[in-house]
Amino acid sequence: MKTSVCIIGGGPSGLMLSQLLHLKGIDTIVLERQSREYVLGRIRAGVLEHGFAKLMREAQCGERMDREGEIHDGFIIAHDGRQSRVDLHKYSGGSSVVVYGQTELTRDLYEARDRMNGVVIHNVEDVQLHELTGAKPHVTYRQGDEIVRIDCDFIIGADGFHGVSRKSIPKTVLKEYEKVYPFGWLGVLSRTPPVSPELIYAKHERGFALCSLRSQVLSRYYIQVPLSETVEDWSDEAFWEELKRRLPEAVATRLVTGPSIEKSIAPLRSFVAEPMRYGHLFLAGDAAHIVPPTGARGLNSAASDIYYLYHAMTAHYLQGDSSGLDNYSAKALARVWKAQRFSWWMTMLLHTFPDSPGYDQKLQQTDLDYLFSSEKALGSLAENYVGLPF
Amino acid sequence: MKTSVCIIGGGPSGLMLSQLLHLKGIDTIVLERQSREYVLGRIRAGVLEHGFAKLMREAQCGERMDREGEIHDGFIIAHDGRQSRVDLHKYSGGSSVVVYGQTELTRDLYEARDRMNGVVIHNVEDVQLHELTGAKPHVTYRQGDEIVRIDCDFIIGADGFHGVSRKSIPKTVLKEYEKVYPFGWLGVLSRTPPVSPELIYAKHERGFALCSLRSQVLSRYYIQVPLSETVEDWSDEAFWEELKRRLPEAVATRLVTGPSIEKSIAPLRSFVAEPMRYGHLFLAGDAAHIVPPTGARGLNSAASDIYYLYHAMTAHYLQGDSSGLDNYSAKALARVWKAQRFSWWMTMLLHTFPDSPGYDQKLQQTDLDYLFSSEKALGSLAENYVGLPF
Repeated sequence: MKTSVCIIGGGPSGLMLSQLLHLKGIDTIVLERQSREYVLGRIRAGVLEHGFAKLMREAQCGERMDREGEIHDGFIIAHDGRQSRVDLHKYSGGSSVVVYGQTELTRDLYEARDRMNGVVIHNVEDVQLHELTGAKPHVTYRQGDEIVRIDCDFIIGADGFHGVSRKSIPKTVLKEYEKVYPFGWLGVLSRTPPVSPELIYAKHERGFALCSLRSQVLSRYYIQVPLSETVEDWSDEAFWEELKRRLPEAVATRLVTGPSIEKSIAPLRSFVAEPMRYGHLFLAGDAAHIVPPTGARGLNSAASDIYYLYHAMTAHYLQGDSSGLDNYSAKALARVWKAQRFSWWMTMLLHTFPDSPGYDQKLQQTDLDYLFSSEKALGSLAENYVGLPF
Repeated sequence: MKTSVCIIGGGPSGLMLSQLLHLKGIDTIVLERQSREYVLGRIRAGVLEHGFAKLMREAQCGERMDREGEIHDGFIIAHDGRQSRVDLHKYSGGSSVVVYGQTELTRDLYEARDRMNGVVIHNVEDVQLHELTGAKPHVTYRQGDEIVRIDCDFIIGADGFHGVSRKSIPKTVLKEYEKVYPFGWLGVLSRTPPVSPELIYAKHERGFALCSLRSQVLSRYYIQVPLSETVEDWSDEAFWEELKRRLPEAVATRLVTGPSIEKSIAPLRSFVAEPMRYGHLFLAGDAAHIVPPTGARGLNSAASDIYYLYHAMTAHYLQGDSSGLDNYSAKALARVWKAQRFSWWMTMLLHTFPDSPGYDQKLQQTDLDYLFSSEKALGSLAENYVGLPF
């Protein structure tokens, strides 16, 4: 087979880029290790920044998001028994975020790809990237007993943190930066009405908690837990009890509980790999960088990668201008690191670090006091939360 | 002897409070361990925030400061071979700082105290505070062979980090928070024209450097050095060579060097003691809190203590309202911690931490990149640098 751009990974990043390039007449093939059902079964965050929502519309996939997604103009930080609202709309100068489940978004992208007869190949095994710096870059994979080869101009590595793409870059070239946090998030999905129309990030001495939502009837709650604990340690009842303890009383008393549909513990990690280009290979999203979920940057920090790649590929194919491809790694990393900075800051601001020195704990409390005393500090939080400009 | 308010420490904080209270008809005595000549021989920083300059004027001591001090509307952060200016006036909404040597300011305060026959007693030894929580608070000191007793309503501990006041609070009551940095500042004072009319804070992989000034003919330069080094390790020549290496070429080439008048190494420390009131004793300035010099908060973080004490004492004596005294510790500490936060942040932003993980070093670089890409972040820096509202 032959294509212009071979995209490894059929998650939202890969599908979105495929869709955007297709609309400009640039041929792509998407390879996905899992089945479509599996991909659509993954539970992921659902806060989309301004720029991501715009990209969805540009990809002609924004219709249902605009109809069913909820515009959030702010969120709550609960602390010291109080609730302080961050008015995103006001402090970002008119922007907001869209709450729309990532599963729904991925479904919309698949349907758009189907409508346009986009090529998305599922259940591919043993994906390998070849001649990344050579004259004939190509990808091979195995489907059953058959080895299939795809010749292409460029390869996009959008196959996540555990994917093959980043691992195909020689260790002598790749530099990895990582920070691991001494806790994880225990998350519960339940078919209950959300306790709050806006997200509540709760700082509490017993540990952080988050009240999030997928829709008017589907709630997502999290609590900070030590890494030593497992899902088996937490009955539904114990989870709800602990969540209530960490919320202001006014919130806890109106919390509607119910059986968990899904329950899991995710470790928190900050990770960046540099560079994001190696020869004909371009990394995008989780393949190159991971943020802790505090601050909802996960999918959003992939948005700028897709945006830069989309414009760089378009300029290359339609105007013969390759400067965007040459600058991709530096440009993408500049914004990636800013999302890392913000996610780290939100994580440090809101979690409990029992072993940290007294001075540092006081600094953390002061950071919050300063935040709510300063329009400038709220402005900085807001512009990062709705997404810095691409 | 008898007075209303006995002030321990004849540095700028103590003198200023004495002067302000005197103008409201409240009697004070200031006790200082050193001679006036010794106090006026100390070399200290000279960046006064907005609110401090206003207090000087309210104390009727601002005339020479306003005539000879220089208004600084901005400063430079040098990094990556470039110079980026922080426009304080623009980003703080019209405020600025005054560069006026602390020695000159202290001299002005002494002269004002002299003019009004203020009582400042020098060379006192063995200062002791008595009955801080009792009915008859008093202070004793020794002058020669004589033990002198001062009965008073209140005692102000403005005698610095090493003074007796904080140490007079029982250890069971006092809580101390501290952070020590793994480096110090080697400072040189020289009778040379400053290299820049505005301060230059230089971030460099070899270590931080600062180009500061006392006047048009008196320069103050600093370089970050390991704590293991001593002044004897640094000839004037070696200092100038190292300073030049850490400055952008355009700055280094116009640096005028000369013999050092003063040369010393100061360790960097963050420190806060809580509470700031114990019975009839009120701590102010360095006696209760220390910041690293990055961000020029030193004297300025005392300014709000003085302001709160001045208004609290005035309300107590003139209106019989003691709520200001009751709230002093909480109110003062709220602003003290914000100055701590800012000084810590500026220190972390600009210094070299050779042992810090790669991820943290990237975050540090990103903090600077974000700062100069965001009006909100510049606004936050500016409002802190000119001084948060009292």
